[in-house]
Amino acid sequence: MRNLQQKLSIARGERPAELLFKNANLVNVLSGEIYRTHVAVDDGRVVGLGDYKAKKTINLKGAYLAPSLIDGHFHVESSMLTAREFARAVVPQGTGAVVIDPHEYANVLGLDGIRYVLESTRSLPIDFFIMLPSCVPATAFETAGARLTANDLRLMIADDRIAGVAELMNYPGVYLGEASELAKIQAGKGKKIDGHAPGLTGRNLNAYVLAGVQSDHESTELAEAREKLRLGLHILLREGSTERNLATLVPLINSQNAMNCSFATDDKLAGDLVSEGHIDHCVRKAIRLGLPPMVALQIATIHTARHYRLRNFGAIAPRYWADFVVFDDLRNFQVRQTYKKGVLVAEKGKYLASQPAAVPKPRSTMNLRYRASRDFKVRANRKGKIRVIEIVPNQIVTREVITAPRLQDGYIASNVDRDVLKLVVVERHHATGNVGVGFVRGFKLRHGALGSTVAHDAPNVVGTNDADIVRAIEELEAMQGGQVAVVDGEVKAELALPIAGLVSDRPLADVIARIAALNAAAHSMGCGLAAPFMSLSFLSLSPIPELKLTDQGLIDAVKMRKTSLFV
Amino acid sequence: MRNLQQKLSIARGERPAELLFKNANLVNVLSGEIYRTHVAVDDGRVVGLGDYKAKKTINLKGAYLAPSLIDGHFHVESSMLTAREFARAVVPQGTGAVVIDPHEYANVLGLDGIRYVLESTRSLPIDFFIMLPSCVPATAFETAGARLTANDLRLMIADDRIAGVAELMNYPGVYLGEASELAKIQAGKGKKIDGHAPGLTGRNLNAYVLAGVQSDHESTELAEAREKLRLGLHILLREGSTERNLATLVPLINSQNAMNCSFATDDKLAGDLVSEGHIDHCVRKAIRLGLPPMVALQIATIHTARHYRLRNFGAIAPRYWADFVVFDDLRNFQVRQTYKKGVLVAEKGKYLASQPAAVPKPRSTMNLRYRASRDFKVRANRKGKIRVIEIVPNQIVTREVITAPRLQDGYIASNVDRDVLKLVVVERHHATGNVGVGFVRGFKLRHGALGSTVAHDAPNVVGTNDADIVRAIEELEAMQGGQVAVVDGEVKAELALPIAGLVSDRPLADVIARIAALNAAAHSMGCGLAAPFMSLSFLSLSPIPELKLTDQGLIDAVKMRKTSLFV
Repeated sequence: MRNLQQKLSIARGERPAELLFKNANLVNVLSGEIYRTHVAVDDGRVVGLGDYKAKKTINLKGAYLAPSLIDGHFHVESSMLTAREFARAVVPQGTGAVVIDPHEYANVLGLDGIRYVLESTRSLPIDFFIMLPSCVPATAFETAGARLTANDLRLMIADDRIAGVAELMNYPGVYLGEASELAKIQAGKGKKIDGHAPGLTGRNLNAYVLAGVQSDHESTELAEAREKLRLGLHILLREGSTERNLATLVPLINSQNAMNCSFATDDKLAGDLVSEGHIDHCVRKAIRLGLPPMVALQIATIHTARHYRLRNFGAIAPRYWADFVVFDDLRNFQVRQTYKKGVLVAEKGKYLASQPAAVPKPRSTMNLRYRASRDFKVRANRKGKIRVIEIVPNQIVTREVITAPRLQDGYIASNVDRDVLKLVVVERHHATGNVGVGFVRGFKLRHGALGSTVAHDAPNVVGTNDADIVRAIEELEAMQGGQVAVVDGEVKAELALPIAGLVSDRPLADVIARIAALNAAAHSMGCGLAAPFMSLSFLSLSPIPELKLTDQGLIDAVKMRKTSLFV
Repeated sequence: MRNLQQKLSIARGERPAELLFKNANLVNVLSGEIYRTHVAVDDGRVVGLGDYKAKKTINLKGAYLAPSLIDGHFHVESSMLTAREFARAVVPQGTGAVVIDPHEYANVLGLDGIRYVLESTRSLPIDFFIMLPSCVPATAFETAGARLTANDLRLMIADDRIAGVAELMNYPGVYLGEASELAKIQAGKGKKIDGHAPGLTGRNLNAYVLAGVQSDHESTELAEAREKLRLGLHILLREGSTERNLATLVPLINSQNAMNCSFATDDKLAGDLVSEGHIDHCVRKAIRLGLPPMVALQIATIHTARHYRLRNFGAIAPRYWADFVVFDDLRNFQVRQTYKKGVLVAEKGKYLASQPAAVPKPRSTMNLRYRASRDFKVRANRKGKIRVIEIVPNQIVTREVITAPRLQDGYIASNVDRDVLKLVVVERHHATGNVGVGFVRGFKLRHGALGSTVAHDAPNVVGTNDADIVRAIEELEAMQGGQVAVVDGEVKAELALPIAGLVSDRPLADVIARIAALNAAAHSMGCGLAAPFMSLSFLSLSPIPELKLTDQGLIDAVKMRKTSLFV
């Protein structure tokens, strides 16, 4: 309290503040106004607006000063960066806080994964708020490294940095009232409950909301988002690397419902974060799509902070953290400076914060058992036709197509000419020996194999021939997880992901360069997808329709049951 | 959970709901839209929007259906009604929830007063949420019946119906960082902290906000409210019996800041609630003043519910309580029906809810000691001039005026011709014998005396002669508290207030009739004030400028210190 009394005396003008931002064009997201004023900061917080004396003055000369930006839903693992390197990527873009769902970390490492996230996200120029993963494993059709129950969530929910329970992907389980799912909602009591209900509509959607779910980030159609908003769900307008819904959903928003919206990236690769931007990109794009700048900035700040109850975030007023962005053009929003708790942490794209020491890596998580000569082969069947997973470009949904397989020595083999390639998923957590084999259309590889352990969460390899598939898996094991492109037994490009088989321990620039090399290799092998390794990962995400492959085999993700390769 | 599972099956459409509101023109305050739909209700909650089967159907035939209205700040004692009778007054106007500050109950009865409020506000067709009185006594210059410290607040804060800490009227104590006041803010941790800062501006206002205060309902000027809103205070637009700020403040509001506004009545008399209305009056008036109906209704519902974290109040969507109003005209808002948890509780002005049993009255609180012949007299002083309290009509502030007194036998007496009347305040809680004597301008009484125990919180009597002043005090004591008009030793009108000396135990209609009789008596005695007894009460409210009288004597409420009658 003595500290507060000191700050009060500064607010009363009796002593100088540490810092004064003079001549700001303040974007006041509380009053909905932009006007000239000065902002006094002390000990990391705003202490007053107006005339103040200070030890140090920053003259903004009429530049805009707004609260820093907040991502409402992000899987930080999707960037394949540690939190420190993620900060390096997005702090220059104006990000000050992120609400993350460490679903993959938890899927691989359980409570230890959440512990690692809590530890590795401290002392950074971004504040991380954590939603507790509610679907580990995502469905019963995946063999995850861990299992989290409502009791596990209850153990952790009270922590100040835990903002609630993360996306309830088992949405049928929720609207059907399964006790295990309702218990997870109850475990989050008083904190926020995130939803995940792609395409859910009508009565079942009503039931999903009635059960206690409070948000959704899966709307891909305007009518879908409108129905969800009307039923009281907070709408996260998603704009990630592959999932891009902002343009579709912006027409939904007006000044009278914007308080129920946030921007979110969900999954976004390191390179895209650096080249395109993070939440600043959402703000820019939303304004270009016709949203008033004030509304876009309110969505990116106060509306998201309030929904997730991020205390003292999202506005510039006394008691709020001095998390600011400075910019010069309201129509073409480009962050020039980012401040965290009053400290300049990025300027003109350059990251200025000092990096804290790296947190020790969690244990190794590659625990494979397979016999390729037997497990990776599928004998042809008399019925003839097979189910093939068809990739929908820039979407996480897939389609099921039926086709005749190519046969080789009585086995089904990849068919390069018709773009039907073998896909192998090996369980990696418990050495169960589970191997799923299926076929996929969309990669258009003409040689070699692509492999990744970022696959909800087993090594996933797509390939034109079994030898390269095997070589890719061996390389993934040797790297303790990662991504790899192999042609004729030779590694063309690779990125080691030794942190949970998901995240690199290398600096941002290095990760971006290696991802670029991987993509270049994939393209040289014939692949036409924008993000081939992300597409590869989503092939195992069993809660998303229509057809997926996990270590347990092919999954009909509409009816949520195992299905056969053969029709 | 079994109950929830049953409701989920209704939401999924597998069984009929109890009730379906068909063909509603739904005012969806979440999406900011008005559109035709049906609303299914079961077990007191909304279970779904859209097509549903139900055991009972109410065809709204296109009438508007909106969430019921919420008062953001009200002292229920100011109506002089028990909670049951208050409900009778305002449920027909569409009120479904009230955030109350039982300041006077606590001032008189301490924790027992809050306990009585919690008990007497259950099982009614209005939900009461309680802010814990933070200023008991309001200042050191009043002798209250009780004293609440931060420790007392901490004891009660966790209760589900406690929404936070009520108005911190000692605003200098807060911005100056007094440990006792900061401790009260800390005691409310995680819940809402209401402010009260009339006229506070500039750096001291910044400090007040920095200390943790989150709202204000005392703005009487547009610029004042704008400054408070900009600094992050939630603005309660007050429209009570005497304090009427809505017309002044409506120009502040737009769609981009309305989420930071609520309607509030603060103090409103029973008769005004019935004749003019409650929050429905605020909605009607705000629309007439130019606010879009959607914004006015959002302020009256979801914005207030969210600010005070009233879970499942303020909107019509699954999981929300089925608290509805039905009306026919968006421009001239008049509530036709009120529903509480799906039950029709009022229609066309008629209250339909069954009244629960009355809660036992708290202990008697009239504990007086005085000797009128000595204590009520003021000997003239050589200096000559005296300080007189001047009433500002329709305001709770007063002015200080200096004038020459009328002398009678060496004592200062009421001067009917110049409207300078004697005012006597007797301490009533601890029989201390404290008596304050002063003079007031504004009542214009030509005969008799008016007395009231609703006076923050001591018997207050203004009179033209000592005999009638004494008679009034004796009558107040005999009634265990109340209000009285006496002329020439005869009681002309009276209202007993045996509950804490503040509240009647009589039915609504009776209370209104007696108040009307009291006002008529006051007017026949020459008084020109609209609400003479409310004006009388405010004369002892020592935190409000400029000059007040308590049992401890005259208070300079600008400098917050005792002052002398003589200049």
